[in-house]
Amino acid sequence: MHLFKKIAVVSAALCVAQLAPAQTLPSPESVSLDKLGLMSTFPPTDAQRVDLSNSYKYPQMRFAAQHLREFVPTRNIRHGSAAVAVLPVDNKSIGSFVFDDDKGNKTTIDEWFKASYGDAIVVLHKGRIVYERYDNQMKPWTPHLLFSVTKSFTGLMAAQLAHEGKIDPNALVTKYVPELAGSAWGDMPVRDVMDMTGAVRFREVYTDPTTEIFGYNWASGLMPRPPGYQGKTNVYDFLKTLQKEGEHGAGFVYRTVHSEVLGWIVSRASNKHWADLMSENIWQKLGMEEDAHVMVDSVGTPLQGAGLNATARDLARFGEMLRRGGEFNGQRIFAKAVLDDTFVKGGDREKFKAGGMPFRAGYSYHNQWWMLHNADGAYEASGVHGQMIHVNPAAEMVVVKLASHPVAGAGFTHAMTLKAWAALAQAVRQ
Amino acid sequence: MHLFKKIAVVSAALCVAQLAPAQTLPSPESVSLDKLGLMSTFPPTDAQRVDLSNSYKYPQMRFAAQHLREFVPTRNIRHGSAAVAVLPVDNKSIGSFVFDDDKGNKTTIDEWFKASYGDAIVVLHKGRIVYERYDNQMKPWTPHLLFSVTKSFTGLMAAQLAHEGKIDPNALVTKYVPELAGSAWGDMPVRDVMDMTGAVRFREVYTDPTTEIFGYNWASGLMPRPPGYQGKTNVYDFLKTLQKEGEHGAGFVYRTVHSEVLGWIVSRASNKHWADLMSENIWQKLGMEEDAHVMVDSVGTPLQGAGLNATARDLARFGEMLRRGGEFNGQRIFAKAVLDDTFVKGGDREKFKAGGMPFRAGYSYHNQWWMLHNADGAYEASGVHGQMIHVNPAAEMVVVKLASHPVAGAGFTHAMTLKAWAALAQAVRQ
Repeated sequence: MHLFKKIAVVSAALCVAQLAPAQTLPSPESVSLDKLGLMSTFPPTDAQRVDLSNSYKYPQMRFAAQHLREFVPTRNIRHGSAAVAVLPVDNKSIGSFVFDDDKGNKTTIDEWFKASYGDAIVVLHKGRIVYERYDNQMKPWTPHLLFSVTKSFTGLMAAQLAHEGKIDPNALVTKYVPELAGSAWGDMPVRDVMDMTGAVRFREVYTDPTTEIFGYNWASGLMPRPPGYQGKTNVYDFLKTLQKEGEHGAGFVYRTVHSEVLGWIVSRASNKHWADLMSENIWQKLGMEEDAHVMVDSVGTPLQGAGLNATARDLARFGEMLRRGGEFNGQRIFAKAVLDDTFVKGGDREKFKAGGMPFRAGYSYHNQWWMLHNADGAYEASGVHGQMIHVNPAAEMVVVKLASHPVAGAGFTHAMTLKAWAALAQAVRQ
Repeated sequence: MHLFKKIAVVSAALCVAQLAPAQTLPSPESVSLDKLGLMSTFPPTDAQRVDLSNSYKYPQMRFAAQHLREFVPTRNIRHGSAAVAVLPVDNKSIGSFVFDDDKGNKTTIDEWFKASYGDAIVVLHKGRIVYERYDNQMKPWTPHLLFSVTKSFTGLMAAQLAHEGKIDPNALVTKYVPELAGSAWGDMPVRDVMDMTGAVRFREVYTDPTTEIFGYNWASGLMPRPPGYQGKTNVYDFLKTLQKEGEHGAGFVYRTVHSEVLGWIVSRASNKHWADLMSENIWQKLGMEEDAHVMVDSVGTPLQGAGLNATARDLARFGEMLRRGGEFNGQRIFAKAVLDDTFVKGGDREKFKAGGMPFRAGYSYHNQWWMLHNADGAYEASGVHGQMIHVNPAAEMVVVKLASHPVAGAGFTHAMTLKAWAALAQAVRQ
């Protein structure tokens, strides 16, 4: 199966492993960690070394996705001492389920998982594990870098704080973060941050170091700074430099920096570090199996738009809590009204069209979540190299898929992913 | 109580928070994290910022001792999914126990804990917690930086591998690490690494950046490198540069670099990363409550002489396993013969005298542990800012004391610590 032989690179929230357009992709087998042997000796050979200078390149990124904390500072998201919420297992023959891929060829769930550079997949049906698979050295206890799935945690925490009256979506950002007065966020309502409809000049052209994505990567510490670097050395200082371009509220344009601003607002409104909120309000309550962690910059700021690392099963517990309307493990995590507003009402589908994501036709974006607006009422969180939490309420299904595919963009796999979601929804109902 | 008003700085394994000699010390209250407010806002103010540039300074080091992973790359030491080995609690009035301090004044265990900048203490008697206290924002689940306590884990793992025939203490280091042929370790037997009797020029003069300790701190990433730095960028490359000075086996001289070499030998002999050995052989077997972690350098090398972080209770479980002769939680961790050789037979007390540690008169050092050779048969692991695991077999007592005192040297507190050990041994027998 070679589903993804040649593709075009699409725009991405956070490009970490960019390939040239229309480049021939390596087969998943050729870039498996077992085959590559990265960092497997003491010390690694030069050829097998992964460090901050190449952790965003391919195939080294495959290793970094499971070992980020070994390259960068991180803050723990403790799951605490409460009993694990055991997910009952009811294995079905999901892997061999046959379906038509996006090219009209027959494939199976197992083949799709492999061909899409999958590291882990957990499928819950009515809260029971019906399919679980790991590859590429990943284990059930390995925290995987989630990239923009991180945003969806930040977004729901912000929406919950708004529900509790601690954040006013109609207030200006500067009510919470006066430091942003001179930036694009100076006259922006919080709602436009939550839904990424605020107008900020933030270009992501990976061949042009004058575009703002480079400033973000250097300031955050995601990429090593060039010699003689004089730029900002933390995320918040970098955000202050970004300027307005266009009109707030006019249309959705996906920009990671909005999530960083939203996280800043969340910390100010709650007076808690994002990692502590995640631990106290989510990880300690859901009976998680493992601690999660988040990358932090040089002043301890978590990368609230890209830096979360967690295991597939713990993400499945989170998804199941959403599917059940905000309760799981005997704990209410989010108000049902927050989830209904986010997932049922969703975002503005007209404004979404401005985002230039034709592969997500019909979607909306709200509170940092993607709503499919399909017949099943599905919604999802999505990271740039194939990390996804997909919830299908009608099928009573939650899918967590973690991957490390070679193209920095959800568009790379999206047509095929939609086919797989539909196939899984069929398969679990068998 | 001002037990430590003025002291002289003594030599230290790893100086992280050096003060000038005979400087007046801050009172513990004045450098409590609650008072300092370090890193407590989003972002921190400049005055309250802790980052790699000042994490080895005082009082910032107090914060770093509980938050190291937020500044540097680390590797997880997973405790796994096994049930926690619950330590029964049998609180006794240990804290108010009165004893004579090293100046002949009356004090109490509580006062000693506070005056010595204690962050945590757990005292076990016959395996039961009889005294447990936390201060300075530390919690039972906080992993604390252990500095040279790390060495004692490396040393016992090496001794166990020797017992299993996987390391030959009489072989040359180069049997396992041929890369060290041109260094001080080129003609050194492994035994002289394990006991720090190998002759290597490694000076620690914190006012002189030409001494080797600076190279170690810069290569490892413990300290930020100066502008234009051209030196080594990882620990193993740095070790290769160190040269012989004197005769191997002549005398004990405490040098952190021996522990790094020993860890290298352990990785080569076991073909496992030090963190994985720690997880599989120790942390997953002892019913630990929390994951531990270790700082790694730019190529993933753990700081096997200084980089371990763990909670007080988990260290108490480790100490209790030692006290019970290698078994705890239904698991055998070390052969009894390994522990008898280390703790009962101990090291060479004559060779120990070369080490220039008069405050440790009568001690020996063997397999990276300190043996007191007192009537109780006590032994201990010790870190530079007051981190200790102290085992007193006769009193059936294990003490874990974690601190962040302002002087980089065990000599700072040692006379008083010996008084406290004796008092605790009396108190637990009440």
